[in-house]
Amino acid sequence: VSAQRPAASLVAIGDELLAGRIADGNSAAIAARLSGIGFGVRGFAVVGDDLEQIAELFSRCAGRDELVIATGGLGPTQDDLTREAAARAAGVELELREEVAAWLRGWFAARGRTMPDSNLRQAFFPAGADVLENRVGTAPGFRLRIGRGTLFALPGPPPEMSDMLERAVLPWARAAWPEREAAARGEFHLAGISESAFAERAGAWMERGAEPRMGVTAHTGVLSVSLLSRGAAAEAVLAARSAEFRARFAEEIYSDEQPDLAFSVGRILIERGVTLATAESCTGGMLAARITSVPGISAVYRGGWVTYADQAKQRELGVEAELLRSHGAVSEPVARAMAAGARRESGARAALALTGVAGPGGGTREKPVGLVFCGLALDGELEARGWRLPPVGREQVRTYAVNAALDLLRRALAR
Amino acid sequence: VSAQRPAASLVAIGDELLAGRIADGNSAAIAARLSGIGFGVRGFAVVGDDLEQIAELFSRCAGRDELVIATGGLGPTQDDLTREAAARAAGVELELREEVAAWLRGWFAARGRTMPDSNLRQAFFPAGADVLENRVGTAPGFRLRIGRGTLFALPGPPPEMSDMLERAVLPWARAAWPEREAAARGEFHLAGISESAFAERAGAWMERGAEPRMGVTAHTGVLSVSLLSRGAAAEAVLAARSAEFRARFAEEIYSDEQPDLAFSVGRILIERGVTLATAESCTGGMLAARITSVPGISAVYRGGWVTYADQAKQRELGVEAELLRSHGAVSEPVARAMAAGARRESGARAALALTGVAGPGGGTREKPVGLVFCGLALDGELEARGWRLPPVGREQVRTYAVNAALDLLRRALAR
Repeated sequence: VSAQRPAASLVAIGDELLAGRIADGNSAAIAARLSGIGFGVRGFAVVGDDLEQIAELFSRCAGRDELVIATGGLGPTQDDLTREAAARAAGVELELREEVAAWLRGWFAARGRTMPDSNLRQAFFPAGADVLENRVGTAPGFRLRIGRGTLFALPGPPPEMSDMLERAVLPWARAAWPEREAAARGEFHLAGISESAFAERAGAWMERGAEPRMGVTAHTGVLSVSLLSRGAAAEAVLAARSAEFRARFAEEIYSDEQPDLAFSVGRILIERGVTLATAESCTGGMLAARITSVPGISAVYRGGWVTYADQAKQRELGVEAELLRSHGAVSEPVARAMAAGARRESGARAALALTGVAGPGGGTREKPVGLVFCGLALDGELEARGWRLPPVGREQVRTYAVNAALDLLRRALAR
Repeated sequence: VSAQRPAASLVAIGDELLAGRIADGNSAAIAARLSGIGFGVRGFAVVGDDLEQIAELFSRCAGRDELVIATGGLGPTQDDLTREAAARAAGVELELREEVAAWLRGWFAARGRTMPDSNLRQAFFPAGADVLENRVGTAPGFRLRIGRGTLFALPGPPPEMSDMLERAVLPWARAAWPEREAAARGEFHLAGISESAFAERAGAWMERGAEPRMGVTAHTGVLSVSLLSRGAAAEAVLAARSAEFRARFAEEIYSDEQPDLAFSVGRILIERGVTLATAESCTGGMLAARITSVPGISAVYRGGWVTYADQAKQRELGVEAELLRSHGAVSEPVARAMAAGARRESGARAALALTGVAGPGGGTREKPVGLVFCGLALDGELEARGWRLPPVGREQVRTYAVNAALDLLRRALAR
């Protein structure tokens, strides 16, 4: 890590993390933000509620890195040891901050409660610390010099952490290292392309030494691609590659900010006023649940059917018994008929239908686990597509199928 | 950490973890298994694909702890540096294992492919390492003595990690420290009780010094409780507390192994042959999706409706317009009528219906965000319940509502 790229270490604190009762999502979120403003993130540590171990970690990280960001351990119970550990690492005492005590009492009073004595712990801070206001919960954070480094202690709950990070940590870090190397970070989310097909078309952009550096993650049917550029021309280099990227993957990109494909598709439906209905067999309501996770979707979503049994496909969607007999429920003609039925019954402009073999049982030689058909009825048009998804587990096959269906609709709306 | 409680450190390796593209779920899973057999887990570290940093971490951890378990960095690319870092930390060279190279060639041949040259990297191991077979993927693991500690290097993909952990690491660790303190771990999953109500009824069991030690995590409507007992009488102490726990929380416990409430309810439905249908408004298919995530549920699940619009509630479920007008869609009478309609239309013995205000918009003074009603029709009986869930966000309200509905059904089936 060069002098122009200040180093940062992240420490997540809590027995619940060590025990696996909660996963540490904070560190990765903080790391992405820090690397995007030119810091070099060395690593994360996860440690339990153990005073000595936390203090030792703080000393070691602050003796090595410019910035140490800790999350958790700021609550009112005896297990919350971040304040004490920081004081120990800095070689200072804890002291009561009357203004914080008053604020805490006010917080409880405003809710018609008396502050429990234990919460007074949250008003003690290492001498010399700057207290950071918590606008979301009760646990204030703090900033403290330890050796050559600066420790930021943030609350563990993600909404509280995130608010304090954006408001107190990042502006301070930007100002404290004005000479740091410039950096710029961007991302794209793609659907309808496999990781290997993407790697082939991205070519040299993906090489380890490439600038900007590219990272790709596949999530059951969608890809998230991050671009990180460093150096004086970071912004310009990122902008140039982003423009090339948009051109090369014009059909596949569905968003440059929102990783959830359902949100992108839902946004288009709402903006264009395209009404939608769904009919699902193997995905059992998952497509409807994803679509209805979009705020405001009630303006266009007309409803859906979970027609697990053949009988329900006939009764609710008017799929003909003969079609089911001759092709089987998992077939392109049945996917089409389900979509057509859902559109007709609901009166929506568009209808998506899914039928497939999610597994683990029910697969045959002809119709193996992972075989999925999607039907789409859009105004006068009726189309269908089939996929043989990798039989990687029931929930993955279902998630994959839902993403494939959403992408089919997205592409049809783009035509 | 006493001599009877061997210490373990976990190291997760990969740029994709540091960048937040993947979350490290391996460490928590390994920690839970290790603490359950009497190890003291000191902490986790997450580090990028950086040879020096990985080697330095291995040296430090192995110099301090009996057991170091690393995950990731065993693939065929130049970014996969775990083998080299371990060799460096142990002060040995990498050497080619012909038997592994032959196995890798065979793996590719069996799939009709020629092994790419790069995969030969996976046949090089630190001198003195014991190679661990990978029965799930291509990346073998290894065990290596470093200083006073023992390093296990496992592949990063969770199914591969998990198989190697159970088969190669835990049996070895049990045998290598026969004198270690005994430990026993158990868990319970509860529904229909808040975290604070649980804490009150659990009382002294939850105190920090209590034996067994209890940990509780709340997940939108369900609680997971872990019990960890240590010492010679660990098994007996755990068994006694577990029996008391079962008695005290008899109504709330739905499983002692499966955290997913839908699985427990689905299992009961399948075992007893109770057919089910669903009708959803605010949860938009989420209840159906959860139920159909249970393998084998097609034997009893008759299907569902997502009746987002009032029109759909009338047309599909026969809810009367007058009922919707006088009580509003989010009301107990409408929840009942939806359940009754779903049962009648589907011919199922049981039907669950949900209607509510998921937010973020749509709340009023009388019907705020978080207000949810669930209707249950079971044979001749018709009941309904309402909740005012905390308005913690659309997806959480919906998840909470689904769990509340599943619990209502679970309790009705237990009567």
